[in-house]
Amino acid sequence: MVASDIDARIDAPDPDDPVFALHRGGKMEVSATVPLRDAHDLSLSYTPGVARVCEAIAADPEVAHEYTWVSNTVAVVTDGTAVLGLGDIGPAAAMPVMEGKAVLFKQFGGVDAIPVALDTTDVDEIVETVARMAPTFGGINLEDISSPRCFEIERRLIERLDIPVFHDDQHGTAVVVLAALINAVRLTDRDLEDLKVVISGAGAAGVAITKILRTAGVRKIAVVDRQGVIHTGRDDLNAAKQWLADETATWAKAGSINDAMSGADVFIGVSGGTIAEEAVAAMAPDAIVFALANPHPEVHPDVATRHARVVATGRSDFPNQINNVLVFPGIFRGALDVRATGISEGMKLSAAAAIADLVGDELSESYVIPSPFDPRVATAVARAVTDTARREGLARRPY
Amino acid sequence: MVASDIDARIDAPDPDDPVFALHRGGKMEVSATVPLRDAHDLSLSYTPGVARVCEAIAADPEVAHEYTWVSNTVAVVTDGTAVLGLGDIGPAAAMPVMEGKAVLFKQFGGVDAIPVALDTTDVDEIVETVARMAPTFGGINLEDISSPRCFEIERRLIERLDIPVFHDDQHGTAVVVLAALINAVRLTDRDLEDLKVVISGAGAAGVAITKILRTAGVRKIAVVDRQGVIHTGRDDLNAAKQWLADETATWAKAGSINDAMSGADVFIGVSGGTIAEEAVAAMAPDAIVFALANPHPEVHPDVATRHARVVATGRSDFPNQINNVLVFPGIFRGALDVRATGISEGMKLSAAAAIADLVGDELSESYVIPSPFDPRVATAVARAVTDTARREGLARRPY
Repeated sequence: MVASDIDARIDAPDPDDPVFALHRGGKMEVSATVPLRDAHDLSLSYTPGVARVCEAIAADPEVAHEYTWVSNTVAVVTDGTAVLGLGDIGPAAAMPVMEGKAVLFKQFGGVDAIPVALDTTDVDEIVETVARMAPTFGGINLEDISSPRCFEIERRLIERLDIPVFHDDQHGTAVVVLAALINAVRLTDRDLEDLKVVISGAGAAGVAITKILRTAGVRKIAVVDRQGVIHTGRDDLNAAKQWLADETATWAKAGSINDAMSGADVFIGVSGGTIAEEAVAAMAPDAIVFALANPHPEVHPDVATRHARVVATGRSDFPNQINNVLVFPGIFRGALDVRATGISEGMKLSAAAAIADLVGDELSESYVIPSPFDPRVATAVARAVTDTARREGLARRPY
Repeated sequence: MVASDIDARIDAPDPDDPVFALHRGGKMEVSATVPLRDAHDLSLSYTPGVARVCEAIAADPEVAHEYTWVSNTVAVVTDGTAVLGLGDIGPAAAMPVMEGKAVLFKQFGGVDAIPVALDTTDVDEIVETVARMAPTFGGINLEDISSPRCFEIERRLIERLDIPVFHDDQHGTAVVVLAALINAVRLTDRDLEDLKVVISGAGAAGVAITKILRTAGVRKIAVVDRQGVIHTGRDDLNAAKQWLADETATWAKAGSINDAMSGADVFIGVSGGTIAEEAVAAMAPDAIVFALANPHPEVHPDVATRHARVVATGRSDFPNQINNVLVFPGIFRGALDVRATGISEGMKLSAAAAIADLVGDELSESYVIPSPFDPRVATAVARAVTDTARREGLARRPY
């Protein structure tokens, strides 16, 4: 097979291929929710009627959140630098994923999500661009932006905007991991406070998981990158990894991933790397393994199950699929419903608890997390988010 | 009545008012065009299937225009500085108009249009912001951006982007005015070359109408602003008005609007000002009056009809409604269908001719332009635009 054959096999879209046939023309459309049959309809929804709605908003900008689709829209913003496992493929190539995400937002959360793929990778430019288009949207979902740039972009947008800004690769993953971990810990009669947790991967997901686990009370965490455990003695750390080293300093010591996993209770893989069966075998009894790399988990679940009590992956063809779709539709549904000023740590924790609670009495080794298609999830998450937002004073709309 | 009563009457949205009831929650939504019933659907439209479409686009960016909704999307971009007759009301207050525009795009052209309201009025920032979000869209419709800023913003975006950029307040208006004028001239047995035309208003519409009339062969034009006829002897002209003065120099002489209208064949009002009945009475026999200010035409059509043979307005409750909705849906439908690199003067002229031709043998004083609800219009405009784009070498898609 020559190179051109390989290229053809990998890249050329075949209109008869089921995947390409499905994607042809895109996966979404815009529809009117008002009638437009005649001049009378036009006079209400466009000129001259529309001018009265414009004037009402000019007099009180809050009116825009009741009388425009801003009330229900989220921008799904990417720069195409960290798309799925494909990496930096650019904004145009990221569009199919952004559309897919938008479709999931609507299907599970009833949220009107708009893909926005940006032709810049400059942090300042991304922040400026998103801030300038913010009047168009009720929330901003950052997506597939590479680490560590994603941290600064999110932080600056949260500071600047008064609508929810949420980097799903960080917090969606962190919330669903915490939900599954709550149940795995419940099943194995442990406490979060006593867990020894190893996280493989110090990118967006690894940082956010560390953060939410710390907030939830986990004290012993070691985060591992390609150079081994991240600890305060290393001199090759960027700002995000330095934060990880400081945050995990009481337990994380110099060593390899195998050193860290020896005796650990929990392994959480968000790296795309691989771990040896021996490393899993060396974990504590009743070990918990979340091997979340897609499509190839860090350790095959059939192998992990030989040694660990609870095994979860990101895949739909094994038990315990840990999938962000359990989180972001309900988070934004709830945030939009109460016009939240942001997504607080408390809202994330309550979302994780709500997801975990849905498992209830059916909790077992092969059921620590609800299915992505469980219709109760988004509603439960939204309710938890609205309740917490109201309690924390972050809700601008009373209901 | 105290001030607060007036404010309440003008501004406070009443949920039972038909206009506000219609606008509640906005006028549009995003819908999936693919099924998402189960894990199999998810594996095709999202991971892992979607990765293959992403890779195909990364290898050949043109694929994005077949396999994402970019193939059918237009951003309706505003900064809220010149919204309807309301002026500079800001981006949030402009949203109801942008949504209305988007709904019209879909209804008449089958185009998925996305409102984008920008929180900046700086020309550089608007150009940068739109250019950065361009990978998301198949075309850019600029809307309600004040003059003369709109000229530079459009020019720079056209230079920078390889997708259609079209400021509707300029070119949509110009095309539909030319269409009506072609038929009014036909009805009154004149030639465009010999017409004496007075245009009241030197903003976006006035400049674009002057440009398209010149391209169509009209030689005698006078454009009037609040200071009177714009001519090369004036020293108070910005760049756009200086262009108007130069472009109309052979006929436009110093004087008032009444001076200019005396003996003129055509009056085109896009100013929001008023003209006296005497000025209309002083026009040439078989005068043509397009009084397009909304909701208050420069001269009431009942008054104009006493002296002019053809009278048109922007209103739906009088004959000959000159409405941009006859233009922009078909222009973008055609441009998207052939992946045009831009909207050329030739494409605009052919669109005007196509609209005029639809009137055919039914041409009369009260029917020089089709109804905005005439279902033939968008298709005819799209066909004219695609034919011209192909002929001019601006079509990137063969069909």
